[in-house]
Amino acid sequence: MSIITLTTDFGLKDGFVGMMKGVMLIICPEARLVDISHEISPQNILEGALVLQRAWSFFPPGTVHLAVVDPGVGTARRPIAARLGEHYFVGPDNGLFTPILESVEQQGGRIAFFHTNNPRYWLPQVSHTFHGRDVFSPVAAHIAKGVPLSELGPAITDPLRIPFPKPEKTQNGWRAHVLGIDHFGNLATDLPDSALTDAHNVSFRMAKSDIRGLVQSFGQGKAGELIALVNSAGFLEIALVNGSAAQTLSASVGDLVEVTLSNI
Amino acid sequence: MSIITLTTDFGLKDGFVGMMKGVMLIICPEARLVDISHEISPQNILEGALVLQRAWSFFPPGTVHLAVVDPGVGTARRPIAARLGEHYFVGPDNGLFTPILESVEQQGGRIAFFHTNNPRYWLPQVSHTFHGRDVFSPVAAHIAKGVPLSELGPAITDPLRIPFPKPEKTQNGWRAHVLGIDHFGNLATDLPDSALTDAHNVSFRMAKSDIRGLVQSFGQGKAGELIALVNSAGFLEIALVNGSAAQTLSASVGDLVEVTLSNI
Amino acid sequence: MSIITLTTDFGLKDGFVGMMKGVMLIICPEARLVDISHEISPQNILEGALVLQRAWSFFPPGTVHLAVVDPGVGTARRPIAARLGEHYFVGPDNGLFTPILESVEQQGGRIAFFHTNNPRYWLPQVSHTFHGRDVFSPVAAHIAKGVPLSELGPAITDPLRIPFPKPEKTQNGWRAHVLGIDHFGNLATDLPDSALTDAHNVSFRMAKSDIRGLVQSFGQGKAGELIALVNSAGFLEIALVNGSAAQTLSASVGDLVEVTLSNI
Repeated sequence: MSIITLTTDFGLKDGFVGMMKGVMLIICPEARLVDISHEISPQNILEGALVLQRAWSFFPPGTVHLAVVDPGVGTARRPIAARLGEHYFVGPDNGLFTPILESVEQQGGRIAFFHTNNPRYWLPQVSHTFHGRDVFSPVAAHIAKGVPLSELGPAITDPLRIPFPKPEKTQNGWRAHVLGIDHFGNLATDLPDSALTDAHNVSFRMAKSDIRGLVQSFGQGKAGELIALVNSAGFLEIALVNGSAAQTLSASVGDLVEVTLSNI
Repeated sequence: MSIITLTTDFGLKDGFVGMMKGVMLIICPEARLVDISHEISPQNILEGALVLQRAWSFFPPGTVHLAVVDPGVGTARRPIAARLGEHYFVGPDNGLFTPILESVEQQGGRIAFFHTNNPRYWLPQVSHTFHGRDVFSPVAAHIAKGVPLSELGPAITDPLRIPFPKPEKTQNGWRAHVLGIDHFGNLATDLPDSALTDAHNVSFRMAKSDIRGLVQSFGQGKAGELIALVNSAGFLEIALVNGSAAQTLSASVGDLVEVTLSNI
Repeated sequence: MSIITLTTDFGLKDGFVGMMKGVMLIICPEARLVDISHEISPQNILEGALVLQRAWSFFPPGTVHLAVVDPGVGTARRPIAARLGEHYFVGPDNGLFTPILESVEQQGGRIAFFHTNNPRYWLPQVSHTFHGRDVFSPVAAHIAKGVPLSELGPAITDPLRIPFPKPEKTQNGWRAHVLGIDHFGNLATDLPDSALTDAHNVSFRMAKSDIRGLVQSFGQGKAGELIALVNSAGFLEIALVNGSAAQTLSASVGDLVEVTLSNI
């Protein structure tokens, strides 16, 4: 079995994703196609990178992850394919895979990047505006079919890396940043749970609201209460029980959360 | 072939559903995964229950229906699996399956519930906030793979049931309730077609608008006309031809429809 | 392998699409089901026709394309199936397939239409309001399973055709029409690239904004700049680099784009 996942900013209305799937099924009819998201905000590479980072490791080894958030389509930015650990990645060379690359580097996993410039593995006709369909989808399908990455083009060692927000150490704790706002209005931050070892002696301040202590789950707060908890990706999250913290706090990506460790 | 359907309030933006599918494909690579809805209103158990109730019986016997609308994630509410008739169901014990349970009871079908507390069939690490991924998805995939329900945990006989609106008999007809508003703005009610045997001698009053008689289909009304008809689930529906009854009537779930049978 | 694509205006919230898939998997368990779009604007046949027209040819020969945008459900409009070139089509006889039919006619491909009125290939019970589930889905699945079209009902030669906007020749160029607005706010028009052979000596006027020359891709303009380019379907498109032309120009489907060929 070959699984190909899809992460794009194409939306679901226009049939763009359907076309990509058609292209892939012609090349690799046995591929399993699984959507991760097609609602990445248009051209938002950071958001796409974070959504894919949270999801990729829940798929089996050998999965091909196709990701297209591509403000530079039609320019000189390279199309790339990578092997990171036991997974494959295909997309534009614009930093989309940075957090996964960094995490595989930290774990000492296998890393190899290729500039997929061999047109033999593209559609015969390539448009200037839809490489998702004409370049990335056929490349992903050929990988799923077993074509070695080295056939797709020359190896490269300088994939573009983009900076990601990191929490800052403060005198009595941390300054965390809102990285993403999910469907429920929960605010995911960049502070890992390893910085939050004492659930009681900690407090959080965000947009003039204070939260004391860390709870384990939504059910431990009352409806309408602001809570802080560790989310399913292992990071600090600010949430409103049975409601939207984003709405209540008028929060945006990039907003600060001041974390005070009172036992310091 | 094993089919697993998915019904959640997770939305399609954040990759939550993709992660669940990755987890299931690792355990049961041959499973067919079919989305029923991921746009249930957040934490709205009633809405999730009604969407699943309308859809489940159109799948083949043996289908596993995974449903996660779970305001109580991380609390003591039980994770459960059920066999209802010839279908399987997996989700939180919060009433999501009540209407299906009641309908299978009425038909005298097989009914068995289990508290799926055997961690052998969960992911090795279980978060406090995403049991959809860590508990329910692996359990559903193991059932699709053939694990007997009794392996998943002890049988239970007291699944939580939640009350659903029912139409009330009035002196000259019925008082029906709007149960759901669909994508087109059609208003589905709780009044079954068995209460509407005479299509001519009946009238409907909703939000100061009157509708006389029941039509069979949208095409029998004029564009912009309010009509009453029996929907594809067999219940009274108020609709606007080529438009949105919900918008025109400013309707909400729970609103009343007075049904007058003039031949009484 | 049999692929069935789905294009509807049903949205993804209510489970309508899931029910259709369940129905098809009972009849043809081996079918691959691929969504093209379920976000066609309600009852907008033109929009559905254009989305399907852009997508269908990227699927392999033998694919069955199921399309349901059906304001006339429950009326006398015929359910039809067609073979157009090497692909199959199933849906209401309301013009949804007109542009594909015209394009296959121009290429001299195979064309055959059938009125699928043989109830043997429908669900046993057919509602008056959901032929997508009760008529079109089972018919599509039977075709995917190998049933010849001629079994489904009598051949017809008069499928309904609906008019589509065409660009008008003007004294010094063309008057094009906005046919569709995609997820990014790009404005696709009805002017084919064959009318735009000189990328330099051409200018565009739309909603009091002027654009000089044609670029090849988004990356050739500056962020926030209005550009004209040939889109991935081969037609003139007005776009805003890293933004929404639709929003900036307050554009709607049907709006005019004046194209001036200055070397005439």
